Amino acid sequence: MESFRVALGERSYPIHIGAGLLDRADLYRPHLAGGSAAIVTNEVVAPLYLSRVRQALRDTRVIEIIVPDGEQAKSWQTLERVFDALLEARCGRDTLLVALGGGVVGDLAGFAAAVYQRGVPFLQVPTTLLAQVDSSVGGKTAINHARGKNMIGAFHQPLAVIADVATLDTLPDRELRAGLAEVIKHGFILDQEFVVWLEANTARLLSRDRPALQHAVRRSCELKARVVAADERESGLRAILNFGHTFGHAIEAGMGYGEWLHGEAVASGMVIAAELSVRAGTLPRQEADRVKALLARVGLPIQAPGLAVDRYLELMQVDKKAAGGRVRFVLLEALGRAVLRGDVDSRLVRESIAAAAR
Amino acid sequence: MESFRVALGERSYPIHIGAGLLDRADLYRPHLAGGSAAIVTNEVVAPLYLSRVRQALRDTRVIEIIVPDGEQAKSWQTLERVFDALLEARCGRDTLLVALGGGVVGDLAGFAAAVYQRGVPFLQVPTTLLAQVDSSVGGKTAINHARGKNMIGAFHQPLAVIADVATLDTLPDRELRAGLAEVIKHGFILDQEFVVWLEANTARLLSRDRPALQHAVRRSCELKARVVAADERESGLRAILNFGHTFGHAIEAGMGYGEWLHGEAVASGMVIAAELSVRAGTLPRQEADRVKALLARVGLPIQAPGLAVDRYLELMQVDKKAAGGRVRFVLLEALGRAVLRGDVDSRLVRESIAAAAR
Repeated sequence: MESFRVALGERSYPIHIGAGLLDRADLYRPHLAGGSAAIVTNEVVAPLYLSRVRQALRDTRVIEIIVPDGEQAKSWQTLERVFDALLEARCGRDTLLVALGGGVVGDLAGFAAAVYQRGVPFLQVPTTLLAQVDSSVGGKTAINHARGKNMIGAFHQPLAVIADVATLDTLPDRELRAGLAEVIKHGFILDQEFVVWLEANTARLLSRDRPALQHAVRRSCELKARVVAADERESGLRAILNFGHTFGHAIEAGMGYGEWLHGEAVASGMVIAAELSVRAGTLPRQEADRVKALLARVGLPIQAPGLAVDRYLELMQVDKKAAGGRVRFVLLEALGRAVLRGDVDSRLVRESIAAAAR
Repeated sequence: MESFRVALGERSYPIHIGAGLLDRADLYRPHLAGGSAAIVTNEVVAPLYLSRVRQALRDTRVIEIIVPDGEQAKSWQTLERVFDALLEARCGRDTLLVALGGGVVGDLAGFAAAVYQRGVPFLQVPTTLLAQVDSSVGGKTAINHARGKNMIGAFHQPLAVIADVATLDTLPDRELRAGLAEVIKHGFILDQEFVVWLEANTARLLSRDRPALQHAVRRSCELKARVVAADERESGLRAILNFGHTFGHAIEAGMGYGEWLHGEAVASGMVIAAELSVRAGTLPRQEADRVKALLARVGLPIQAPGLAVDRYLELMQVDKKAAGGRVRFVLLEALGRAVLRGDVDSRLVRESIAAAAR
């Protein structure tokens, strides 16, 4: 097991990464404040891992809350079911919520923890690659709104993240690839050396070589944690984590949530963003080609869906990263170095979308 | 105008109290970050004061969101209407929410501000006595759940509170009295001298003598602000602000929200709590009589509704102040001094309810 801390002052917390951590009662125990624990998970994860976490919490009263699988569960309706179950079981403010599952479960349970009785503590126990490398780290929680993804949410840091890489054994191939999109993104924006490692180790990752996966998860978490520590509430630097996401969110919203996996939308969003970087003069063409090549090698879509350019722009404008109505873009200056730009000519944006989507 | 600050480190903010503040553009201006302002108000307040606030914000794009009057508006459905309006108007993270109205509007708009796009800034512009002396101060925001009041919410401090005591001219008598319940509560738990002042000035307050009201609002806010500054997230001291509230919330929930005004339920809840203080041996009987006498003089109910004692206990147990399933009570040791007790014999609780309700 490897552990390191996300440095956020009094909200600092550890991230534990290793195989077989689900069963480690000692990792949960420090966070049980004497009240109950409520495990929030979904229909797919529950049969695989719920009993093991329940067993690790055996000295505590445990409430189980099983929600539907899929992005549609990031809704007020599902959230209400979580609240109903917590209130039914008379859970007080000393209840520990345990988010066991992928990004959807983590975002939903994390937001439930943020607002249930004005805030209760929670643990992230991510079981998908996407959740382990991205959504479980940084304290962003949210549900979706018909008009946009993650529109309703909170910054609420977990007490700890317990990332058991052995759970990736049961992850469908498509989700493994989608998770790698965020891993690669962390390399693109922050760490050239990691990009080179990823280019060399794609095959090991896709064959679920455990040491390779553990390295990828740890490095990804470290990179993200560094950014989050510097800018917890996304007032500046943290926005670089949205590389590919302004386009990616437009793709998800335009296709209907759940059609494209988040990582798939982000992958083709990164291709558009790299194209935009070239056209805005910040990135050499051959580096953009490396972006595309690495994503393609992982089996991710590098061609965005052929929505009308105007539809893209429309969907991007309600994106919450917009400040003062103006859309800011994360561009690459090199593989491993991102820059935030608010002055990108909208003509270049149109051209980049037209070039990369169809 | 009188102003003072609530000391909360980087979340510190000023409270301005005076007559005619609604129109003071200079009080709003420092908080406009360049984005839009969205005024959330209700059907009763809008015709009275909305145009004046809009006028004070005339250099800004203003969105108006008018919700129904009454406690029922503290619901997810109403919250959704607020989100719909904000998203429809493409409001970004730099939008300033302005809560113009009573406690319901403040709690609802404050919670909307806490979670819209993971948090936007907001101003409290309270127009009822209850909101001016209590709910607008301290950052508690929430909506109700079928199983309990304020079950879903957040701590989210406003950028400022603008309390215009001239708006109390239009407040119905019953609401004025209900607001005084919280004013009196602040005296009971923290300031004997203020209790004596209230005993001597009841008639002036009920006749809406403006200097008397301004003094009551200011002193109340100061007392509450001092407690909030010491314990922002209610881990200890802040719980004393719940004097009378454990019983009061049970009354509100048991009668159906909105039947009894919050202040009315708190008033008769304080009578039960004072009775419990006497029976638990912390308060002399004649001081409990003063509690009752002052509330009666203001015209507040001093007899709680005659729900079955078991029903009271049942309603109190889901109250979120419960820690580890045990209900803690705020008792008085004197007029002006409160104490938090977790060891109160449930027999005494039963007897006190039976004695004070029917």
